This record gives sequence, C-alpha cells and structure tokens, in this order.
Amino acid sequence: MAVEQLRSDGHEVRVSDLYAMGWKAHADAADFGAVTETNFMLASGEAFENGSLSADIRAEQEKLLWADTVLLHFPLWWFAMPAILKGWVDRVFTCGFAYGAGGSAIPRYGDGVLAGRRAMLVVAVGGREPAYSDRGINGPVADLLFPIHHGILYYPGMDVLPPFVVHGAIRVDDERFGRIADNLRKRLGELEHTEPIGYRRQAGGDYDRGLRLESGREEPGTTGFGLHIAS
Amino acid sequence: MAVEQLRSDGHEVRVSDLYAMGWKAHADAADFGAVTETNFMLASGEAFENGSLSADIRAEQEKLLWADTVLLHFPLWWFAMPAILKGWVDRVFTCGFAYGAGGSAIPRYGDGVLAGRRAMLVVAVGGREPAYSDRGINGPVADLLFPIHHGILYYPGMDVLPPFVVHGAIRVDDERFGRIADNLRKRLGELEHTEPIGYRRQAGGDYDRGLRLESGREEPGTTGFGLHIAS
Repeated sequence: MAVEQLRSDGHEVRVSDLYAMGWKAHADAADFGAVTETNFMLASGEAFENGSLSADIRAEQEKLLWADTVLLHFPLWWFAMPAILKGWVDRVFTCGFAYGAGGSAIPRYGDGVLAGRRAMLVVAVGGREPAYSDRGINGPVADLLFPIHHGILYYPGMDVLPPFVVHGAIRVDDERFGRIADNLRKRLGELEHTEPIGYRRQAGGDYDRGLRLESGREEPGTTGFGLHIAS
Repeated sequence: MAVEQLRSDGHEVRVSDLYAMGWKAHADAADFGAVTETNFMLASGEAFENGSLSADIRAEQEKLLWADTVLLHFPLWWFAMPAILKGWVDRVFTCGFAYGAGGSAIPRYGDGVLAGRRAMLVVAVGGREPAYSDRGINGPVADLLFPIHHGILYYPGMDVLPPFVVHGAIRVDDERFGRIADNLRKRLGELEHTEPIGYRRQAGGDYDRGLRLESGREEPGTTGFGLHIAS
C-alpha cells in the first residue's frame, strides 16, 4: 500500500523485505570476507574500506546512499525492533560507513554518511495507546523509539520525521484498517514537508567535551531523552 | 570467568552461548510446527500449548524455568541488544509462555511465568560513561536498558537487579580488565542479597484501567520511565 502510494506520487521506491530476502540476522565475521583485523568492530571497518563486506550488506549500504527518504516498517516486539531488522542495522551500519572507531573523524548525530536524507518509522504496536502514553505502564512510545530515532537514524545524519504509530494492532478490522491506510497515505504525501524531530547536532555547540548537554540549554524540567530535542 | 566464579560459589550453571549454538535469530512460522492459527502471535501460543515449538525454543524455555537467576551478557550495539539476543527473546518469550493474547489471564509486570527468579544484565558499552549519564548525548544508560529490564525481564515476572555495565569497552587493557573482573565477581557473589530495581507491579494498585500510573504516586518531578519505579 505504501509502495503503491509513493509510486503513484512519482517517487522511485526500492524495497528491502528482509524476510522475503532471507536476510541473515546475526552479525559475524563471515560478513567481512578476508580481513586482517581481529577486533570485530575494526574488522567491519576494514571490510568496508577494502570492499570485502558480503554482497547483501554492500547492497543495503548502496540503497541507503541512493535514497532521499528511508522508511522502516516493523511491529514493535518486546518494545524494540524484531531481531531480523535489528540485524539489518547491526550488519549494514558498519564501522567506517555509519560510525568511526574511537577518535576517528566520522561526524555523527546530525552529520554523517546519511546526512540530507529523511527517515520515518511505521510501527505497529499491539497494545493500546494509554499504556504507551506519558504515564503508561509500557513507557511513552516516543521514549521507546528514541534509541532507534536518535541512536540509529539520526546518528549517521538522517533527519527523523515523527513516527507513524498504529496502536492496538493486534486486532484491526477492515474499517479501521481503511482509516489507518488513509492516514498513512496522507503522511507519505507530506514526507518532504514534514518537520523533523528537532534533535541537537553533536557539532552544534550544545555538548561539552564529555558529550553531556551544557547546563541551561533545555526547557526547565526537561529530563532524560527529551534533553536532546532542542525545539 | 563469571561461570567459573558462580560454580566455585556452589551454583549450578547452564550456559546458552547463542553464537556457539548457531542460534536462529529471526522468528518465523517454522518455529511453530503444525498449527492451525494463521495469526503469528496466536500461532506461537498454539505451538506452546500443543508442544510443537521447535526444540531449540523449548530447551530455552525449560532453562528459564529451571533457573533461579538469569544473567544476560551482551555488548550494547546501536543502543540495544545484538540481533541474535533479541531473536532469543522474540522466539523464546512466546505467547502462552511469557505473555497472554489480548484479554487472557497471564499476569505480567512483576507476576508471570518467571516470577520468583532474578535477572541481571552484564553489558559492555563502547562509549564512555559521561556520554551515557543523565545529560549524556546517548541518553542515560538506565533509560536505554529500561525496555530490556522492565519490558522483557520484569514483564514475565523476574526481579531485575541493577545492571553490571562496563563503559569504554572498546579498549580495555589487562589492568582494567582485572578490576572489571573483580567487580563482576563481587556482584556475582552478592546475587541473592542484591536489592532489585523497585518496579511497580501491574497488579499492585498503582495503575488505572488504561494502565496509566495513577496521579500522585510518584515523587514530584519524576517523568518517563522513572515513573514505574516505586522506590
């Protein structure tokens, strides 16, 4: 549905259906080809640099570079991505591509290899909205998604749009499905004009040398993940 | 090291080394054997009930029931579990075992199949501690671990001990490794006497029918995930 809508709006779309592709979920040294490094992280960086990453990983990196907008569709399982999608991140976001090792110069949090691109999550959540609200027992859905939004998508430079979250996804009748689909089509039609979440750039002067937010930068009373949203 | 220490303290230890086991990370219908349900979640519940879950999953469920304490050791990758461990959760914590479908009567958050057991994370974090502190750019490590602590371990009833977190794990020389190992041995020696994180039981009367925390239950100024800790 999303793909049809995007194509009818004139977008080119490339789909990575991880289950259909038989995506290998676990990262291991077989991903790297012939490398000399024995440290796992550095070996992934060496494989990136020398082009010996496995073909499935290189293809996904190339798709990310090709895209102007990246949509991740998934059900929230145990308050996080399903393993197969986490494995897409673990394997594709290699050292040298998405992050630098130690003191290396790859910028991050608002800058990086994917800067200039937009990203949006489309997430199906089994439980009802109140249980994921500010005082909900599962935690606020915005906080549950922060490690993905900020830690995975914004980290290598993507602007992150507010997510499209479907609550109560355990049971969706045809009538509600129709409304959800209409709302998603509307969001897809507005992708280029939607205001991203206003995360603070690491290089923007808000953080000290220990990468702590300088005091006084936030609205009084703001704590936790919310500190890293400037506006 | 942890295993040796626990055994020398008189504990019986069973280890699930997911990489060594060739653990299948992605959940799919092949996990369920012969079932009639077509809904994925309900099919996992049917497979649990009729004993047709794949043997690797049944073995892990049996280990969880056998244990009085569960330790999960992993490196934090992209601010979450590595895919192979997330796949252990996705596949082992089936419907009917760890959670009920819809209105079913399986209690959760402090009660459940694993009640009476203790759990502790042993987590290696690449970056330095200030970047994971209250104002750190990556978010507070306690908040990053909340979906695991509360959403995965406490959900089916386990008491969750404060985590053992090693920061700066990218580079650990022998001298620091020795200190880390000593600290971990100390924590392992205190497992039975360590105070768990004081999460609120769902059945404890703190939540309304929408599973929102009743107003006035928290210390003034507490927000987000912290609301769900009573003490």
